[in-house]
Amino acid sequence: MELAVVLASGGMDSCVVTAIARRSHRVALLHISYGQRTERRELKAFSEIADYYQAEHRLVISMQHLATIGGSSLTDPSIPVTRANFRAGGIPTSYVPFRNANLLSAAVSWAETLKACALYIGAVEEDSSGYPDCRREFYDAFESVIAKGTRHSGIRIDTPVIGLSKREIVLKGIELHAPFHLTWSCYQREDVACGICDSCALRLRGFQQAGVPDPLPYAERPDYTAA
Amino acid sequence: MELAVVLASGGMDSCVVTAIARRSHRVALLHISYGQRTERRELKAFSEIADYYQAEHRLVISMQHLATIGGSSLTDPSIPVTRANFRAGGIPTSYVPFRNANLLSAAVSWAETLKACALYIGAVEEDSSGYPDCRREFYDAFESVIAKGTRHSGIRIDTPVIGLSKREIVLKGIELHAPFHLTWSCYQREDVACGICDSCALRLRGFQQAGVPDPLPYAERPDYTAA
Repeated sequence: MELAVVLASGGMDSCVVTAIARRSHRVALLHISYGQRTERRELKAFSEIADYYQAEHRLVISMQHLATIGGSSLTDPSIPVTRANFRAGGIPTSYVPFRNANLLSAAVSWAETLKACALYIGAVEEDSSGYPDCRREFYDAFESVIAKGTRHSGIRIDTPVIGLSKREIVLKGIELHAPFHLTWSCYQREDVACGICDSCALRLRGFQQAGVPDPLPYAERPDYTAA
Repeated sequence: MELAVVLASGGMDSCVVTAIARRSHRVALLHISYGQRTERRELKAFSEIADYYQAEHRLVISMQHLATIGGSSLTDPSIPVTRANFRAGGIPTSYVPFRNANLLSAAVSWAETLKACALYIGAVEEDSSGYPDCRREFYDAFESVIAKGTRHSGIRIDTPVIGLSKREIVLKGIELHAPFHLTWSCYQREDVACGICDSCALRLRGFQQAGVPDPLPYAERPDYTAA
């Protein structure tokens, strides 16, 4: 089996993507800390997921410059994390400017050094928070940058859940026995999930719509089924 | 005047690019350390160039992951820096996998936060060392990634010296009074330039072909005029 680099945040989407990648590839798991509020909890989730999938390589990178540059409630304590609002539209305060290009670039550097053939990322376009760097056209354009800017230009980007809803991602994870109990999604808290930030709300709605219980502990568990 | 982010390594190419950008823009100077051998000397050059051009913003970012990932003689002490060989062809050992995509991504994040309209980088295609991420087509592709992956998609990439030879860059710098005496290019040494690494050889040849003395001190100053 060929080697693939998987960007693994510790969240549910990248966990399901790891499960998908693992079926056809040996995996190298990459976690990137960038000063986000729940960094330590995410790192714990990443380590446990990497153990679960017996990752052949694992690497944790620190990108403190994303926090230094700021502009996001995820990394700047002075900007409040907005409460989820499915009808608000627009880009929420948790958007980290051009974050995914920074993550992909590091992943490509590692993939090139490891001679990996593919790069998996758990971006979700539909049913996402409206981040511009989660759209399919962004990844298509980035793949062309890889082809032009690397020595071994055969590294492709695989976004296997980009077209799925959170509900479908939950169902796919259940089918593949993804360890949802090891994942972490909350943007605000590290002890129990808050249940009301963008990320918790999208996750809870996904589980609720799939009719599957979310194994994580929550401070609040609003009913988002109709949201 | 609008604001532009300029990637400034401390070397001669980005110094001339800063001079070019400064004519039409307010400038925000960005330096990125990535564990390269001559990091401290480059940072000194960057600071002095930023002072010279009275940069409105300046930011120094550390990308230690490029050193951790390795694969280059620039960041891995166990890989020797190759002696310049203009006839060898291929990609030299100093190539840092996908480095410029990592630099550009951080620069775009900063530009988006500062609401800068442009990004200047001193990449040189012709007369360069053959790095894949110094080619014009790489920058064209990256500009399309910016358009698709940012909130304010109007940030363009300006590569004003990409088509110039080192000789022409020297002449352009002289014309614009660029402070070549403040720059640093050597990949190997921090006290005096070695004169024989890829970077020194390209620089010295440029000055020699332009018929202009290079103000830096060198350990060796081979005649590269006919190389």
